[in-house]
Amino acid sequence: MQLQRIGSLITPFETRAQCPRNGRQISPPPLCHAQIDEAFRPGLQGLDGFSHLILLYWMHEATEVALSFIPPFDSTPRGVFATRAPARPNPIALSVVRFDGMEADGRLRVFNLDCINGTVLLDVKPYLATTDSEPEASMGWLAPHATPRARPDR
Amino acid sequence: MQLQRIGSLITPFETRAQCPRNGRQISPPPLCHAQIDEAFRPGLQGLDGFSHLILLYWMHEATEVALSFIPPFDSTPRGVFATRAPARPNPIALSVVRFDGMEADGRLRVFNLDCINGTVLLDVKPYLATTDSEPEASMGWLAPHATPRARPDR
Repeated sequence: MQLQRIGSLITPFETRAQCPRNGRQISPPPLCHAQIDEAFRPGLQGLDGFSHLILLYWMHEATEVALSFIPPFDSTPRGVFATRAPARPNPIALSVVRFDGMEADGRLRVFNLDCINGTVLLDVKPYLATTDSEPEASMGWLAPHATPRARPDR
Repeated sequence: MQLQRIGSLITPFETRAQCPRNGRQISPPPLCHAQIDEAFRPGLQGLDGFSHLILLYWMHEATEVALSFIPPFDSTPRGVFATRAPARPNPIALSVVRFDGMEADGRLRVFNLDCINGTVLLDVKPYLATTDSEPEASMGWLAPHATPRARPDR
């Protein structure tokens, strides 16, 4: 199971410390780009009309795995699979981003990214409200720490 | 960027032909399991209380990449990044599943899986309605092919 880079993510965040806790914490969110490498651009055909995309990317700075740890805003140890922290066995992150169309040369305009500038992109998927949206989902231990949804960026 | 298995998925679907188009096509959906390998079970602490999870898994039967193709229920070529088809540069699939609690020995009860029995599991993430749910998202070329949401499985 070997991965390959399909492009990279361009964000205003140059260090982990600069990254927001998630892509909806900053309101309004900054414009970011997903730059698709030339060889993979034929795969972009038909993206127009989707308002949201799912991006999978590789958290290259997460070089150590912590299966259980006390999150920064908590006092109880939590398993990594109950968090979105980078220190996972497979450091693949997922962001649901708002898609604002394609610029020239395989460059997608997106909002709501939270990762470091230059992060390696692994996949782009169309977001499907019918299978991916669960607005009533309960959030376990994270409920009191939820990021309120800002309306202006919708 | 090398991946490791963290467990496997137990479903009633033994071949690709038996798999539903997505995990919400069968109503009510069958009970499936995510079986976490023993070494990774400390990562499960704190999953209780989440009603939905995101599972990432490896589509091992997708050995060829098709960057553009005509989908089965369509007549126009679509780029693979505008579909959820398995023939992607990185054959990682994502399912938002309903989580029905943990059985003994690292076995999660889940609904809405659509993959082959024995599929390798790569990651478990908590589903966060605040960042992952976009109920109003528009679905581009897939809109006329949307799977109606059955209410009983919610």
